[in-house]
Amino acid sequence: MSYSMVELISKKRDGHALTADELAWIIREYTADVIPDYQLSALLMAILFNGMTVEELSAWTKAMLHSGEVLDLEAVDKTKIDKHSTGGVGDKISIPLAPIVAACGIAVPMMSGRGLGHTGGTLDKLESIPGFNVLVPPSQFVRQLDDIGVVMVGQTETLVPADRRIYALRDASGTVPSVPLISSSIMSKKLAEDLNGLLLDVKVGSGAFMKTIPDAEELARTMVGLGKAYGTPVTAILTNMDQPLGRAVGNANEMVESVEVLNGGGPADIRELTMRFAAEMLVLAGEHDLETARSRTDEAVASGAALDVMIRLTKAQGGDASYIEDPAKFEIARKTYVIEADRDGWIEGCDAFAIGTAAVRLGAGRAQKSDTIDPSVGFMIDAKIGDRVTKGQPLATVSYRDDSRLEAALTLAAPAWRIADHQTYPPELVIGTIT
Amino acid sequence: MSYSMVELISKKRDGHALTADELAWIIREYTADVIPDYQLSALLMAILFNGMTVEELSAWTKAMLHSGEVLDLEAVDKTKIDKHSTGGVGDKISIPLAPIVAACGIAVPMMSGRGLGHTGGTLDKLESIPGFNVLVPPSQFVRQLDDIGVVMVGQTETLVPADRRIYALRDASGTVPSVPLISSSIMSKKLAEDLNGLLLDVKVGSGAFMKTIPDAEELARTMVGLGKAYGTPVTAILTNMDQPLGRAVGNANEMVESVEVLNGGGPADIRELTMRFAAEMLVLAGEHDLETARSRTDEAVASGAALDVMIRLTKAQGGDASYIEDPAKFEIARKTYVIEADRDGWIEGCDAFAIGTAAVRLGAGRAQKSDTIDPSVGFMIDAKIGDRVTKGQPLATVSYRDDSRLEAALTLAAPAWRIADHQTYPPELVIGTIT
Repeated sequence: MSYSMVELISKKRDGHALTADELAWIIREYTADVIPDYQLSALLMAILFNGMTVEELSAWTKAMLHSGEVLDLEAVDKTKIDKHSTGGVGDKISIPLAPIVAACGIAVPMMSGRGLGHTGGTLDKLESIPGFNVLVPPSQFVRQLDDIGVVMVGQTETLVPADRRIYALRDASGTVPSVPLISSSIMSKKLAEDLNGLLLDVKVGSGAFMKTIPDAEELARTMVGLGKAYGTPVTAILTNMDQPLGRAVGNANEMVESVEVLNGGGPADIRELTMRFAAEMLVLAGEHDLETARSRTDEAVASGAALDVMIRLTKAQGGDASYIEDPAKFEIARKTYVIEADRDGWIEGCDAFAIGTAAVRLGAGRAQKSDTIDPSVGFMIDAKIGDRVTKGQPLATVSYRDDSRLEAALTLAAPAWRIADHQTYPPELVIGTIT
Repeated sequence: MSYSMVELISKKRDGHALTADELAWIIREYTADVIPDYQLSALLMAILFNGMTVEELSAWTKAMLHSGEVLDLEAVDKTKIDKHSTGGVGDKISIPLAPIVAACGIAVPMMSGRGLGHTGGTLDKLESIPGFNVLVPPSQFVRQLDDIGVVMVGQTETLVPADRRIYALRDASGTVPSVPLISSSIMSKKLAEDLNGLLLDVKVGSGAFMKTIPDAEELARTMVGLGKAYGTPVTAILTNMDQPLGRAVGNANEMVESVEVLNGGGPADIRELTMRFAAEMLVLAGEHDLETARSRTDEAVASGAALDVMIRLTKAQGGDASYIEDPAKFEIARKTYVIEADRDGWIEGCDAFAIGTAAVRLGAGRAQKSDTIDPSVGFMIDAKIGDRVTKGQPLATVSYRDDSRLEAALTLAAPAWRIADHQTYPPELVIGTIT
């Protein structure tokens, strides 16, 4: 069947729903270079304004999913569960989480991304480990998942090629902030991983792409719905991203913090969320309840099994595992600058967006795709919302390499802290769960 | 000044107004091939959804207007008035109108278009005259306008190049039906003609691009406002396009009907609108009132002066003027088919869109840009809304060349007439005037 793309754009523009055949045709012909970019970008903008029905979104996601190869993990005789975060600042949770869950006997075929805008990326953080390779051949992928229970890699070229192309076009055409387009992008990639269950961490707040709870809830419900439509159980957890997660914002320093969590330590918020997510993933894998699950994941950490998985994972992917055994080996930039409280009071705000953007300016992220990352630079945060501070007390320590970059970063980061006269309280980390 | 196109698209998408500088930058960089089609089409779709403020539209139109050359008609020592129609079926009014107005001492530098969709085009009709050339060099344009008072040509390549490119992109990206985009397209071209006044015929009804009076009124008010912003007086007249204008729908047959009007004859509706428009153009040129103007235009027809202008115009543009002197020379396809009333009653509907589309199928218009037109084919309509008919009475005669095309045309045209049991009345031709 062939269609007129102008007629399909007009149909969507005028508020009518496209059929599954029409949507599949669009994805197929766009991926085959038949539909030009200027027609797809117009359609994407019409979708941004008019939304998609549940049926349209399901058909669109399915068409994207089948635009390339789909993983076949039947050879791995374990339940496969992955986790995806919509992106935050200081969000290193995937790194301790995946080994903990794998240590409980679940396979975690985790495909992650790079830093995007003000948010960090799991792959960039893992590459702070010398030699760590985020691209592994398909045969190793399956073998490693079977042996160690976890693979942490970037998305391959052959998986959901339609998403890679459409995402690049959205980025260049102002059509990123659309719930159906975000949902289909995330879910097409995750559903291509041949999973038995998926945990979604939907971040809400100044440091997240979704700034309000209703927006985040809409995104979460849409993705959970898409999972249902494919028979893949999905749990979405809305979590606060008004301030950075943990203390470390950067790359090497976030690896250090991740290893602390695997050793049973680390900042309370990161530890709490990691263990909560691990338990949720066990429940998705069939565990009876969160409490039983939690006792198993606690044991995986306490016994050292989770850290052992992280060491084996690192070795399997070519990394120098001595960094995991001795995190002091991670190179942190020598020069430091301390941001101090300018008055007494209680921390009311510690703006994740400002700190995330400042970290990019330091060199911890990319302003352009071609930029290289300096893993050694970043922030260690000392004061977060609810903390009482006195004038001159450190709010954060900046590790930096270059004076001009420090200056650029401080312009953004210094005003990130707001100090109130009255007592303040830390925000609830977990806002809600949608299944 | 340089901008990020993605940021400008996002600004428009989120409902904010773009500045004059930003809009001028977009037109300039798009025309210079710096901004790619896929970004402009996304912006056009965002404009379609969010509209434009009066200031935005004015700046956008001005930027388009200045994307190429602007006519300089200072050498022509006459008042310059043009007329533009938003397009209809059987709408040959420009052809008798321009010579009548020129015969009254006004210069009419008319740049017209080709048939578009179901509507006919003035240029296609004029080319039914053997030898008639719709492209004249600039030097002849000015000389002929000065001598004869009228030029009827296509738009030159150098005038408003931004519109030609943007129009082609709109056509291919589903972004045609937007009041600001339609208005700026029409007005940038007309304001580039160096006019003292402009008459707009905004068609409303089944055969028009604007199907409802409120939509047509919005378009008319927008274009009148744009004229005001440039100091060019504009009168917009909303006219009915539920049924074809006059009897002829085609090309050569519409030329015949046009010459009838120049001879003081022709169907009542075409004659009425032509003379009304001619008087309105005289008023735009400074005539005291419509009645005085009407007596002058009536005299231009009665004296033969208007016909004489048409003959001189035809000769000047290389056409065989004997066709104007003896319209029986126009070649009309030999084969005819009569559509008959299938019952007694009153004509309630004579669908202009259906008949226009049927004429395209006959070969009187283009389904694709590369199609050639057969000037000899078309419809002669015998029964219009308000007419009483008896079973078997002719509703229209089809002149055709090819049996399979006739069949395709009849599928659409035969059901175009609706016959009621009760008495019906013809629609008001002129719905309203906006100045």
